Amino acid sequence: MANTTTDDSRKENNQDLTLERSNASFNINEITEIIDGGVDKTKFRKEMEKLLFDDPLFKDFYKTFFKTRSELYEESIARGVKLFSLRQKYKWTDEQFEVIEDLVNHLFGMSLHFTMFIPSLERLATETQKAKWLPLATNFKILGTYAQTEMGHGTYLQGLETTATYDPVTEEFILNTPHKSSMKWWPGSLGKSSTHALVQAVLIINGKNYGMHPFMLQLRSLDNHMPLPGIEVGDIGPKMTVNYNDNGFLLLKNVRIPRQHMLMKHAQVSSDGKYTSSGPNKAIYATMVLVRVKMTKWVHDALRKAITTAVRYSAVRHQSKMDDSGPEPQILDYQTQQYKLFPVLADTYALFFMSRNLRRQYNRMMEDIRNKGSYKMLAEIHSISCGLKGLSSKIGIDGASICRTACGGHGYLMVAGISEVLGLLHSVVTAEGEYTVVCLQTARYLMKQIAKVSVGEVVTESCEYLNVDPQSFSCPLQTPADCFNLTFLCDIFRNRANSLIRSVASRLQIAIESGTPQHIAMNNNLQSLVRVAEAHSETIMVLDFTAAVTSLRTSPETIKVLTSLCQLHALHTIVKHAGDFMETESVGLEQIKWIREQELKLLEIIRPNAVALVDAFDLHDDSLGSLLGVYDGNVYERLYESTKYNPMNQNVVHPSYHKYLKPLMSGEMISKL
Amino acid sequence: MANTTTDDSRKENNQDLTLERSNASFNINEITEIIDGGVDKTKFRKEMEKLLFDDPLFKDFYKTFFKTRSELYEESIARGVKLFSLRQKYKWTDEQFEVIEDLVNHLFGMSLHFTMFIPSLERLATETQKAKWLPLATNFKILGTYAQTEMGHGTYLQGLETTATYDPVTEEFILNTPHKSSMKWWPGSLGKSSTHALVQAVLIINGKNYGMHPFMLQLRSLDNHMPLPGIEVGDIGPKMTVNYNDNGFLLLKNVRIPRQHMLMKHAQVSSDGKYTSSGPNKAIYATMVLVRVKMTKWVHDALRKAITTAVRYSAVRHQSKMDDSGPEPQILDYQTQQYKLFPVLADTYALFFMSRNLRRQYNRMMEDIRNKGSYKMLAEIHSISCGLKGLSSKIGIDGASICRTACGGHGYLMVAGISEVLGLLHSVVTAEGEYTVVCLQTARYLMKQIAKVSVGEVVTESCEYLNVDPQSFSCPLQTPADCFNLTFLCDIFRNRANSLIRSVASRLQIAIESGTPQHIAMNNNLQSLVRVAEAHSETIMVLDFTAAVTSLRTSPETIKVLTSLCQLHALHTIVKHAGDFMETESVGLEQIKWIREQELKLLEIIRPNAVALVDAFDLHDDSLGSLLGVYDGNVYERLYESTKYNPMNQNVVHPSYHKYLKPLMSGEMISKL
Repeated sequence: MANTTTDDSRKENNQDLTLERSNASFNINEITEIIDGGVDKTKFRKEMEKLLFDDPLFKDFYKTFFKTRSELYEESIARGVKLFSLRQKYKWTDEQFEVIEDLVNHLFGMSLHFTMFIPSLERLATETQKAKWLPLATNFKILGTYAQTEMGHGTYLQGLETTATYDPVTEEFILNTPHKSSMKWWPGSLGKSSTHALVQAVLIINGKNYGMHPFMLQLRSLDNHMPLPGIEVGDIGPKMTVNYNDNGFLLLKNVRIPRQHMLMKHAQVSSDGKYTSSGPNKAIYATMVLVRVKMTKWVHDALRKAITTAVRYSAVRHQSKMDDSGPEPQILDYQTQQYKLFPVLADTYALFFMSRNLRRQYNRMMEDIRNKGSYKMLAEIHSISCGLKGLSSKIGIDGASICRTACGGHGYLMVAGISEVLGLLHSVVTAEGEYTVVCLQTARYLMKQIAKVSVGEVVTESCEYLNVDPQSFSCPLQTPADCFNLTFLCDIFRNRANSLIRSVASRLQIAIESGTPQHIAMNNNLQSLVRVAEAHSETIMVLDFTAAVTSLRTSPETIKVLTSLCQLHALHTIVKHAGDFMETESVGLEQIKWIREQELKLLEIIRPNAVALVDAFDLHDDSLGSLLGVYDGNVYERLYESTKYNPMNQNVVHPSYHKYLKPLMSGEMISKL
Repeated sequence: MANTTTDDSRKENNQDLTLERSNASFNINEITEIIDGGVDKTKFRKEMEKLLFDDPLFKDFYKTFFKTRSELYEESIARGVKLFSLRQKYKWTDEQFEVIEDLVNHLFGMSLHFTMFIPSLERLATETQKAKWLPLATNFKILGTYAQTEMGHGTYLQGLETTATYDPVTEEFILNTPHKSSMKWWPGSLGKSSTHALVQAVLIINGKNYGMHPFMLQLRSLDNHMPLPGIEVGDIGPKMTVNYNDNGFLLLKNVRIPRQHMLMKHAQVSSDGKYTSSGPNKAIYATMVLVRVKMTKWVHDALRKAITTAVRYSAVRHQSKMDDSGPEPQILDYQTQQYKLFPVLADTYALFFMSRNLRRQYNRMMEDIRNKGSYKMLAEIHSISCGLKGLSSKIGIDGASICRTACGGHGYLMVAGISEVLGLLHSVVTAEGEYTVVCLQTARYLMKQIAKVSVGEVVTESCEYLNVDPQSFSCPLQTPADCFNLTFLCDIFRNRANSLIRSVASRLQIAIESGTPQHIAMNNNLQSLVRVAEAHSETIMVLDFTAAVTSLRTSPETIKVLTSLCQLHALHTIVKHAGDFMETESVGLEQIKWIREQELKLLEIIRPNAVALVDAFDLHDDSLGSLLGVYDGNVYERLYESTKYNPMNQNVVHPSYHKYLKPLMSGEMISKL
């Protein structure tokens, strides 16, 4: 029942894929609409695909792999300028623009202008300041970014070193990056593009340190783009990916800005240097949470590209023989290939339902804040989003790495697109809160919750399972078939997290009671704390996926196939951490054997729908950016075709032949030594 | 007691590193000499470092990250030509040249000329053919590569499609790549550099297929380097790494070559088209084994770069606080950072001792072949090298990925060097035998060995543990301290592998006895077979490392610190696969708890020697190619300095400002829409 789209480019299908598609047991449009968020949104996305991918500027994403950094940067600026102009023309909402960002793989310059510069102004500037700068920003008279991270400090904000010293005589702040470690390093769009930046700097008045505050700083002349006096700015260099972005550095040497350029909504400095503050700004934390919430979705977006490519290519690629007499099977028919890919496919769906639920929780929290001024949910959502951002990035890297190697040698080509996805996911691990640091945030929250349980206080919803005594738990799996029971699986996940949390809490308590200083007791248990954050986050993912598939309003066929994926996600996670589950006696020797067997059965169940399940993501070839994963499956033709655009092939004889190879072959080179 | 070298570049050390080095409990030179293979070899290496890195062509490896592909290729050709000329001048042996290849990170063009083209000629050509081509090759009159892999087939050689059809009228072979999938795709140095290739093609005489045979084919004119008629050749495009290499494609359309261009040592075609063969060529398999043996060492070489960088950087980087009152600690003091890095450090040493032993076994086998004509050891060494090549690549990727993320944001910069290492290791997984395929080779061998046990036959040395009945095993760990007993740990590894092997063998037997066709029974157990290959290979690594540290002739301090690493390698591997070890009852609930505790204790034991243990690899900064891992620890200064060489900073204002940003800011862009 799988539908195919009507795009011309999708007509000539590889026969293997045609057969795979005709074998699907469900209608892929049902899943596509769930993922887009409704039929109207699917329609909008498809319209945008038409608008964008008819334009040569956005077509053939894979060709970006042939460009130099400078060409890539220039292309991204051209794209950014086009998208900004179209945004102005069509008056797209922020939500609509997010769809477009995803379609073009975020590959456009100056994206922080809308995602960080303008929102930060709105959040941190006074009404007067907003009246001055917002119109300039929204009309592109100035182009801005947000400069916080320094060479010496990232996640640990208290360590930032850039200073803004108030001079009451001239009513100015003097900005400095006193050491090498103080220079701003990493902010996106800073190196070559932005004219302005919101700079986070330590405020100093009369020698007193008031901590980090935001300042509006003009970096470059609006006439000729030259950096202003006292400002050194540039690109930090090539990265694993995102090389279209001019992540920049910024050195400041006695740069004077008017007092009014400190953003004063939450803290003020008067002309005579008096400091006032309206207290800690919780809204800032909410914004920080939003970034992490979004990142869990980005991991899904990235991983679905890798798994789409790997599954389609595995259906097209034939290799080796199972049986001497038979033909070479599709590699997707090997159990080992299924064991690599189907758990990643299941994880990709798990990420979607988790991130959707996380965004819904975040939205409820924001409503609470807006309507009732209540920040009650903030601590819990913060703890959940930290752990899930961390876990997502790990699942993403592992999954993309598996997809890369599952595509064999050809997966190593940049035009396979998976290497790019892997590089992008690597950035998610460390950006916006380093993995270990965010896991420890979650773990600290869990330690507080379990402390509540021990004194009979009420815990938050995400930690309700802590109310159960693990001593009273016995594994609910009585037969192999029970391994498909999602209620049982959820209980097993809860028990494992509960046991691990209690065990580290009790070790911490014993250490502290026996006189170990708290920070040493903490450091001695740091790894266990990371482990409980992971266990807790994995539990949430299984619970979210289960809740989603048991409440979907769609056809039974679609529910059935998504349920298999949910089961596989849960069982595979248990197998991955079999030690954890056995050590906490969440499963026993017999059960783990059943789980491994049933996991393999699920591979067979999923096999006929594998291609349809990636088709359901409905990624346009120009978004996918992979020649191995193209919808029509004409992989070998595309690979060969791509060599024509490879700059290395622009000359039949490379110039280095004349410089080096010819003199070597003539003996000239050796006689010169 | 750690020694520092006397290089000028190493004088101004970061104070943290100076202190770390003075705290080491052992003399690093002792380990350096073990790794180099003796004091003379250390001396030779250091002389070569001086020779190479005084030459601007080989200095500052990190600057390669700023180059375009075409520049990188050209630089690699310049380097290759220089190295070939020096090789000629100094008459370096193959073994000496291997040292040099490692020092320059294999970053030079035409390397297959010496590693594949000439050795294959020596192995496959007749004496007459050798007399003709070898002098041309060794004097660089022709430049050659080896072309086997095709677009449609890699590891599965029987699937190759390129044809060489004999024409007895003209006494020529006609070479063709009949389909897109048949074109050669991947061979190194093929795209732009080589004048000749040894092409593997299916021999056809009178319509009969004689399977794969090697042919000498001239690709390009020796006058002007233009491809010859019927030959289309080019570069396949950018890859995850090794972008200096012109991995190529080759299409052949009725290319005629003289009969004498088939390499006829092992099989012959007479002028009238009669085929003769001297039987299967076991020497070819031995060569294939050698490549995999070498690859296990390359993984060590690559991983030691990543771990050197991550450990040094973690000693230099200070971040966050454990205790509100204290300073920001070195990140290496956090338990979580140690838990990331020290197991990788231990794995890196484990890889060294394993690969050294594997090479020694290989050499013994070759002596047997040369002296006695006995291929007795071939099957066993083949099975060991398959599994260890697979396992190494996995340990390498996981380890490099950990090092990358452990360096936070800065680790994401290309000049950190780890991304390059990670990319390189990704190639090891799929090149020269895809991971799953090689694991299954090992597993099939294990199945044969266990079958021997069941009928009372003698098994080979690497499988001797199969003679024990797992039923008779009880975990030898009686106290937490027993977890440091390497003899006990080796037994635990043996039992886990033994149990897993027996269990899959018995499942296979039951399936086949109950009538399941063998190939289906195999496919249903494929994943379990991969698992037993991994378990067997992990056992060999622990056994090799243990044998090495218990037989070293060096100071007690050095033995002590290497023993700690060996213990950590073993315990961490158990923790990683805790499920496996518990499911096979190799350890129980209590023991796994002890193992986790003792693993954390080892982190504290290793901490004071961590920097010295990476210093002992004695990597020259120009080999390391990482600005985060530089010996002097002046990381921030180097990062800032590197921006001066970044092409993106060659103009203060990027040209795209005038093309796109200025028109956007002036409103011109939007009015044009």
